[in-house]
Amino acid sequence: MLQFAIRFAVLEDTLPSRSAKIPPSLKKRAAQIQVVLMDVDGTITDGSVTLLSQPDGSALEMKTFDAHDGQGMTLGRTAGLRLGVITGRESAALRRRMQEMGVEFVYEKQPHKIAAFEQVLVKAGVSATAVAFLGDDLPDIPVMKLAGLAVAVGNAAQEVKDIAHYTTKANGGKGAARELIELILKSKGVWDKLIDKARA
Amino acid sequence: MLQFAIRFAVLEDTLPSRSAKIPPSLKKRAAQIQVVLMDVDGTITDGSVTLLSQPDGSALEMKTFDAHDGQGMTLGRTAGLRLGVITGRESAALRRRMQEMGVEFVYEKQPHKIAAFEQVLVKAGVSATAVAFLGDDLPDIPVMKLAGLAVAVGNAAQEVKDIAHYTTKANGGKGAARELIELILKSKGVWDKLIDKARA
Amino acid sequence: MLQFAIRFAVLEDTLPSRSAKIPPSLKKRAAQIQVVLMDVDGTITDGSVTLLSQPDGSALEMKTFDAHDGQGMTLGRTAGLRLGVITGRESAALRRRMQEMGVEFVYEKQPHKIAAFEQVLVKAGVSATAVAFLGDDLPDIPVMKLAGLAVAVGNAAQEVKDIAHYTTKANGGKGAARELIELILKSKGVWDKLIDKARA
Amino acid sequence: MLQFAIRFAVLEDTLPSRSAKIPPSLKKRAAQIQVVLMDVDGTITDGSVTLLSQPDGSALEMKTFDAHDGQGMTLGRTAGLRLGVITGRESAALRRRMQEMGVEFVYEKQPHKIAAFEQVLVKAGVSATAVAFLGDDLPDIPVMKLAGLAVAVGNAAQEVKDIAHYTTKANGGKGAARELIELILKSKGVWDKLIDKARA
Repeated sequence: MLQFAIRFAVLEDTLPSRSAKIPPSLKKRAAQIQVVLMDVDGTITDGSVTLLSQPDGSALEMKTFDAHDGQGMTLGRTAGLRLGVITGRESAALRRRMQEMGVEFVYEKQPHKIAAFEQVLVKAGVSATAVAFLGDDLPDIPVMKLAGLAVAVGNAAQEVKDIAHYTTKANGGKGAARELIELILKSKGVWDKLIDKARA
Repeated sequence: MLQFAIRFAVLEDTLPSRSAKIPPSLKKRAAQIQVVLMDVDGTITDGSVTLLSQPDGSALEMKTFDAHDGQGMTLGRTAGLRLGVITGRESAALRRRMQEMGVEFVYEKQPHKIAAFEQVLVKAGVSATAVAFLGDDLPDIPVMKLAGLAVAVGNAAQEVKDIAHYTTKANGGKGAARELIELILKSKGVWDKLIDKARA
Repeated sequence: MLQFAIRFAVLEDTLPSRSAKIPPSLKKRAAQIQVVLMDVDGTITDGSVTLLSQPDGSALEMKTFDAHDGQGMTLGRTAGLRLGVITGRESAALRRRMQEMGVEFVYEKQPHKIAAFEQVLVKAGVSATAVAFLGDDLPDIPVMKLAGLAVAVGNAAQEVKDIAHYTTKANGGKGAARELIELILKSKGVWDKLIDKARA
Repeated sequence: MLQFAIRFAVLEDTLPSRSAKIPPSLKKRAAQIQVVLMDVDGTITDGSVTLLSQPDGSALEMKTFDAHDGQGMTLGRTAGLRLGVITGRESAALRRRMQEMGVEFVYEKQPHKIAAFEQVLVKAGVSATAVAFLGDDLPDIPVMKLAGLAVAVGNAAQEVKDIAHYTTKANGGKGAARELIELILKSKGVWDKLIDKARA
């Protein structure tokens, strides 16, 4: 069987390359960020909502996170960023992963996200210009409009992309959080120093 | 075997863009819909049938739904659409998710789908022209032939696409239900008003 | 953000289209098939081997099958085909799914597959020319060399494709079994009659 | 943002074809390998970190491995290669799979990987030139710089690819380990003899 490959392609890496230039206006916004808030489903997961049927008729919820995102969060923490999530759902899976990653602000069961966002401002003692929000769908729009850096995942709803300062190349749950944190740390000029501090 | 593909592509969004024009005949059908019925496996899931082995030799069933589809269903409910599923299988996972999404008509263990379809017409007090059906495989064909709006998911069997009024860009379990509900709400001219009502 | 799509593509459907021509030599082989044997991991699953850690330090195995493949197996059974699997692993998940699909011959824990293959010939009372084997990796090669119709999944190892009579367009666990069964039933000229007999 | 891709492609195989030429300098490195060490998450899994919520508020961890990778490890063992993993996490799922695959060196909970790497050198009685390391992310860089053959998975972080001797065509958890082991066994000139020894 004949199978061969010719590719003439402008192909991008999954993770942004070290040499990529960050536009000045974006860099300015990103350099001011001290707190990174994120939606959960579709943002730090790929949007899968997986339920396991139990013999008693109930169902347990699973969540799938991404190891590259996790490494990004760990590096962000090392660099002094404070992290948080605001979600409409709740699960033990989320809480365990957030604890592993040092995610400080965990707001579950929030049909509207504004109240939690404002509480984080108070707790962290920062203004909204120091907060980035990463989202994928319509309920994220109100807080994204308040955030100093509003970022949409690569496969976000069009309405979310329309109001974002930046859309990641990576899709939700597939490196979008890593890409955002790299963007912030590179804009602050501290990324290269952090590479050697990475831990498994 | 020679496998061959030429692609000249600028990437498209997963979710349909706001500016996309809906063909008039499709818009007319979609504007009349009051009830949205859906198949389950391969339609509001990606077709994965996942079983977890148990120590006693039995196996538990998992189902994976999509957060974007869920947001679409919630918006559909807010706009007054009534929702239902008709499936040949049964699982606690499905029932939990359908309850979370406000899906009113849940028919499990239906080798043929016509009987359930007709019961929904009676319960909802509508004619078939007010019902959309979203499906992916051969057992969906008989009810799709009855529905006012028959929609195939992007990776449906060819025979299903052949008899559908519309085939979604998104694949089953990856936004097809969201795309259908957006199509209906845009055809009714209520989509833009709903964006601000989205809840997580 | 400007995002648009131009596609100039020779794109194929996931499932083979009704009008696709089957080469005469392949059709002759396929029309003789009475028994369809399949490998499991990578063939009727996508090759994922998923284990769930338990509190006692053990781990439970999950298997993910495909709804389109399942529909194909059910139609094959309706048309009188007899089905079987031969695998090196074992799991309750596999046994439950095989029972649901009416798969008659289930051989687990077979490091070599020849012995099970020969037992099926005796039990089914057919010669090897009446048996199709669908596989994806090196341990499938010996039985594929014996089978009347040897089929490799789309993402099989090159060595497997090299000795196959046909390689499916679909990947393992993503419609390859459906495509094989459709090939057989179309070669026998009974596919179109079966569409109306499909059950969910 | 303008996202742009032109593809002129004839599809390539997931696994490398038998006829692919290995560059001489790479072949020389690969032929010397006696021990293959691997990262886990993102390297022999696709990077998914999946947690299942439990009724008591805890969460169990799942890991998804790849059947093609497993077959590669088994063949590597048959050819006399010694295998190991070094990871920052720990799970019963990993330990079960490693036992099934005959993976001899299993180091869990290693925030830094150098200590484990050096222990393997002592236990195996080899120098670093006889060790290959397969990785995907920043914490793998220090050991990759020591290994005789440093290999990045296809979707590794750019910094990892930059210091690797070879980057696999396959992504992590999707055949990268298989591709590495094939590379080594082909470089040693023993691959063709092993095909007939494959067991399910």
